[in-house]
Amino acid sequence: MKKTYLLAPGPTPVPETVNLAMAAPMVHHRTPQFSKIFGEAAEDAKYLFQTQNDVLILAATGTGGMEGCITNLFSPGDKLLVVNAGKFGERWGKLCEAYGMTPVWLNVEWGQAVDPKEVQAVLDQEPDIRGVLVQASETSTAVAHPIEALSKITRQRDDLLLVVDGITGVGVFPLPMDEWGIDAMVTGSQKALQLPPGLTLVALSDKAWKFADQSTCPHFYFDYKKERKNLQNKTSAYTPAVSLVIGLQAVLKGVKEEGLENVHQRHNRLARATRAGAQALGLGLIAPQAPADSLTGVFVPEGIDGAKLVKSLRDDFGVTLAGGQDQWKGKIIRIAHLGYVDTFDIVVAMAALEMALKKFGHPVELGKGVAAAQEILMEAY
Amino acid sequence: MKKTYLLAPGPTPVPETVNLAMAAPMVHHRTPQFSKIFGEAAEDAKYLFQTQNDVLILAATGTGGMEGCITNLFSPGDKLLVVNAGKFGERWGKLCEAYGMTPVWLNVEWGQAVDPKEVQAVLDQEPDIRGVLVQASETSTAVAHPIEALSKITRQRDDLLLVVDGITGVGVFPLPMDEWGIDAMVTGSQKALQLPPGLTLVALSDKAWKFADQSTCPHFYFDYKKERKNLQNKTSAYTPAVSLVIGLQAVLKGVKEEGLENVHQRHNRLARATRAGAQALGLGLIAPQAPADSLTGVFVPEGIDGAKLVKSLRDDFGVTLAGGQDQWKGKIIRIAHLGYVDTFDIVVAMAALEMALKKFGHPVELGKGVAAAQEILMEAY
Repeated sequence: MKKTYLLAPGPTPVPETVNLAMAAPMVHHRTPQFSKIFGEAAEDAKYLFQTQNDVLILAATGTGGMEGCITNLFSPGDKLLVVNAGKFGERWGKLCEAYGMTPVWLNVEWGQAVDPKEVQAVLDQEPDIRGVLVQASETSTAVAHPIEALSKITRQRDDLLLVVDGITGVGVFPLPMDEWGIDAMVTGSQKALQLPPGLTLVALSDKAWKFADQSTCPHFYFDYKKERKNLQNKTSAYTPAVSLVIGLQAVLKGVKEEGLENVHQRHNRLARATRAGAQALGLGLIAPQAPADSLTGVFVPEGIDGAKLVKSLRDDFGVTLAGGQDQWKGKIIRIAHLGYVDTFDIVVAMAALEMALKKFGHPVELGKGVAAAQEILMEAY
Repeated sequence: MKKTYLLAPGPTPVPETVNLAMAAPMVHHRTPQFSKIFGEAAEDAKYLFQTQNDVLILAATGTGGMEGCITNLFSPGDKLLVVNAGKFGERWGKLCEAYGMTPVWLNVEWGQAVDPKEVQAVLDQEPDIRGVLVQASETSTAVAHPIEALSKITRQRDDLLLVVDGITGVGVFPLPMDEWGIDAMVTGSQKALQLPPGLTLVALSDKAWKFADQSTCPHFYFDYKKERKNLQNKTSAYTPAVSLVIGLQAVLKGVKEEGLENVHQRHNRLARATRAGAQALGLGLIAPQAPADSLTGVFVPEGIDGAKLVKSLRDDFGVTLAGGQDQWKGKIIRIAHLGYVDTFDIVVAMAALEMALKKFGHPVELGKGVAAAQEILMEAY
């Protein structure tokens, strides 16, 4: 017998109540019954995105939502500043290239957040750049980029958009879209939204919708103007992912009940506890200056193969964490704490990490990381 | 948002896979399809009970199975030795009284196991006693009684039965029915069997079946001879609890896969870890000499209301443990570790206990109980 614990940065655990809601008999999507659900989910999504604008609900994962932002807002030949601080920053650039836009790469050392001054410098140098593409939380490096500071730059200009991949940010830490002036923001269902993968949510600012009127980039499935029109009728252009939308409605109801501020505080508390626990074990944080509250990355001690450690945690201990990618393959582990995650998930993650490190011969004082995490987790009680 | 953890001595957590099996469309119970399931469950239950005799599967909770033992094996006027070491020992006596038998009370101090010599002494004094009624694990005091030693006494005589309430013992620690010569043994679905409440399983020795032929006690629903006859046809006398039987089949398949010895070892490891953790926190065990591997009871520190502590653990921390009953009301807490429970459940229980004690002002070093538990839990990895 082995119980399993999912603490990777997506998919994240799905609450039993949500699984049960999604297991209800299938309903047809062109019915008043489903339209009511779809409409409620879209309305509550505005609360999540902290926006008065429409939030589109699309049957795709987050990358689909990112693609739609590129193809609906920009045109072939457009220059777009890509904050490339990890795997997902790189993805923005690849999307630009796929559709004939010109990425202007702003490469940032892994583990660091982008410096807004550098963004300003690139924009000054290339004034025809039409968009800044960035992650709220760069999942591959556990870094949070300074979205508010970037928005202060982009909102000065009518011919420049701030496009934010909020896939591991929305519902984790504050990203008040309207207040800050974020122009496009994307999230996915399998992160803070506690759902299986398969939905992406996208919201655009008024400025972004004006860009959408000018775009000449080809697109069909991800047609944001068409989706916005359909949303007026509480439906979607193409078949919606019915069960996931039912789940989304249930989750967003829960978010409203908990209160977005409390949701953010919970994530922040879990993140601080995880960081404190890891540091108590002497593990170096991969993003010490700008850690995201969605997940915590730590360097694996010298002499231990991080990939084997992650495998043992999963196969021996039943605890799924994430390893590193590319240059950090085998060198780091990432503990996610977003979505349906609470106090004792962090305790489990920390205890399992201690025990796995010990199994791998690393001198570790059992309970030390747990204790450091507990000190912070106590704040909630 | 609050996740909940169930670590009380029944109901215990039900595995997701078992819940899904039980959620399959309802089937009719008088069909070859269901008979196959019923027959397999009854067959695998023999493995669990370590017996070649039939194991009856009845739609009732454990107390029903206990009642059936009294009413099927004995007759009004019979003298029965009741090992009364807690709430459940007392229940044996009440059952005797309800059906006109004469309980001979052997009262044992709470927290202590019965001394087989005392049982022998009572039997010597009252040679017409026809049965020894005892718990394998007295859930109210977290004590394990010495069943093997008692069986050495009872199996010497053809006119004396050893009747064991194994409700929190079967599937937790070794109770090899045939090898030891236990004459009747009962368990319930909501303990080590990882199911919702509603099933009781009962097995009788050949000697006990002979007693059943002589019994004049009235009974109807709990008719063990009738059930045994029906079991030959892979069915039950009255409507079986269909979903629970489907769940039982799934659970017993899992027990066979894990191996009964491994199941026992797991419970023993979790129990030792819990005891070590509690002791590291300076909490006194309520049954230090004969602790059961099914649950661990500890005294609440002076000045703390145990009932309030249990309530806070449940309502604030989401962790359901059990408090004390009768003379121990408000004075103890009981942490169960039977059934679908593994390493990190113990970590969670210990961390939550530490944090709740701290919340209640008790000087506790966070992580200390967790660490002591981890040391033992490491044995599995």
